[in-house]
Amino acid sequence: MGGDHGPEVTIPASLDCLKDNPNLKLILVGDETVLKQHLAKSPLDFKDRLTIQHASECVAMDESPSKALKNKKDSSMRVAINLVRDGKADACVSAGNTGALMATARFVLKMIPGIDRPAIISTLPSIYGHTHVLDLGANVDCTAEHLFQFAVMGAELVKAVENIDNPTVGLLNIGEEEVKGNEQVKAAAKLLEASNLNYVGYVEGNSLNAGSVKVDLIVTDGFVGNVALKSIEGAAKMIAVSLKKEFSRNILTKLAALVAYPVLKSFKEHIDPRLYNGASFLGLRGLVIKSHGGADVLAFKTAIGIAEIEVQKDVIRKISEQVEATLSQKEGV
Amino acid sequence: MGGDHGPEVTIPASLDCLKDNPNLKLILVGDETVLKQHLAKSPLDFKDRLTIQHASECVAMDESPSKALKNKKDSSMRVAINLVRDGKADACVSAGNTGALMATARFVLKMIPGIDRPAIISTLPSIYGHTHVLDLGANVDCTAEHLFQFAVMGAELVKAVENIDNPTVGLLNIGEEEVKGNEQVKAAAKLLEASNLNYVGYVEGNSLNAGSVKVDLIVTDGFVGNVALKSIEGAAKMIAVSLKKEFSRNILTKLAALVAYPVLKSFKEHIDPRLYNGASFLGLRGLVIKSHGGADVLAFKTAIGIAEIEVQKDVIRKISEQVEATLSQKEGV
Repeated sequence: MGGDHGPEVTIPASLDCLKDNPNLKLILVGDETVLKQHLAKSPLDFKDRLTIQHASECVAMDESPSKALKNKKDSSMRVAINLVRDGKADACVSAGNTGALMATARFVLKMIPGIDRPAIISTLPSIYGHTHVLDLGANVDCTAEHLFQFAVMGAELVKAVENIDNPTVGLLNIGEEEVKGNEQVKAAAKLLEASNLNYVGYVEGNSLNAGSVKVDLIVTDGFVGNVALKSIEGAAKMIAVSLKKEFSRNILTKLAALVAYPVLKSFKEHIDPRLYNGASFLGLRGLVIKSHGGADVLAFKTAIGIAEIEVQKDVIRKISEQVEATLSQKEGV
Repeated sequence: MGGDHGPEVTIPASLDCLKDNPNLKLILVGDETVLKQHLAKSPLDFKDRLTIQHASECVAMDESPSKALKNKKDSSMRVAINLVRDGKADACVSAGNTGALMATARFVLKMIPGIDRPAIISTLPSIYGHTHVLDLGANVDCTAEHLFQFAVMGAELVKAVENIDNPTVGLLNIGEEEVKGNEQVKAAAKLLEASNLNYVGYVEGNSLNAGSVKVDLIVTDGFVGNVALKSIEGAAKMIAVSLKKEFSRNILTKLAALVAYPVLKSFKEHIDPRLYNGASFLGLRGLVIKSHGGADVLAFKTAIGIAEIEVQKDVIRKISEQVEATLSQKEGV
């Protein structure tokens, strides 16, 4: 039901995913009448691979997370997360209210023992392919220990979904020299240096998309991570606006645009933000993927695809085991 | 002497600026022999508009700021800042070691009474023209009061250099709702709301380049500001690399590039980061402009141009007066 467009987007995206992956099963959670109306528009029939779980309420995009948690016990997001808790679903994908989704997921699923706070992880396109980044906005203030926990969880996720043994981990800072940064970042660097992680040191903001070397995972607090993510979105938008303006200037530039069209199209596809939609909440005892609220069908499909991969790769179990191993190792020191 | 390229860049840029502005006078500060050698390459002669002030030492780009301050009392940056303190120069422009320049400027020039810390301000291109942003990296931890002081100084600078009466001021945050953000940002919002500034509320990272409305000044702490700035640089680089790659793919795309060349050139010029080079240190009792260390001639010219404008607009005096008025008003409440 969630997101700016609701079932208009989530249902066509779900049907597309079912068509693409014959092993996928989806449970649509929300108002049964509304969902059935939308499903009736499609000639596709996936039988038992597509079921509906009714939920009588819906959390509004601007609703306070605490109120949603307290008052809407039959909301679509709450019911969907309950399915994950009860083992009836392997993951929950939602385009709804981020704060409410996070609060509900945390309340229903509980944290992995040893992890203090959930973090939001996603990928950003880079000149080397892509980079995983966390936290993208769940935690505005983080201690060094929180940043370290994010690194442990993030590295395990990268290992699993990218099939690499020892992903490189960088800590986002305002310079690469040891003396740079605030106290939390400096203390987190010490924890990372002493760990078994493949820690490569401080990286700067440009490393998110185009650093001097490839870094698999970049760790930061949720305030900085969120501002960086949105700054990149703004930069991409400004560049797109400027490029479009230049190509629409006059008849000659419009002709040039026509000639360059296939190139510009391929370029646009390569950095299409819809192909990077879907962020995982890490640190919970269950898989929850947050789609951008404004996602269209393609973007929401990407988010469902992330859930498929993380379920296949058994990410939650691997993270839980790694967290347990890392913590017992630290306590043993 | 500073920057990655030293007089190779700073001298041609200086000569170009003198040629462009017949009212400009420049004092080149550094090793007299080296500077004269470089000047000898040019046929231009600006007589008393171009003088040399010898300095026997030079701060290395990776030197510790505290060591530079303590041990290099005849460094080019120290001598240049001394000229500002003594009223022999209206501004100092340097492409040298940022930390050393900041420490030296603060030690020699002292702070404007009422301002606790200097901040770095610069402009970023935006879909509305450009946006002024501070702090871009001088302060990794800021209290609400510091952010408020940055806003007062920044707004005064924007007023002066943009000729606008009441510039809009936004506070960088991870959401626009009142509940979002860390404690410092929330407390700074309260100070800004109670002030005479044209405070428009929280803005997100995308507002730096492409927000939903134009904001003249965006205020943040130096950690977040620096990461955001470099994230934008990285995004622009990735997009440029991707665009270039698509246009070099095969003979057809190369032909398309040829046709689109004038458009792409104009596009590139519009978002050329060299046209945004030069950041001012605000809060000091004198004008110091920091150029990017890797600046080329055009970029360094831009930085000198910023100094010219801020001198003409009497920015330091205006900021000092505004700070005094704002503080006395606050104390009067």
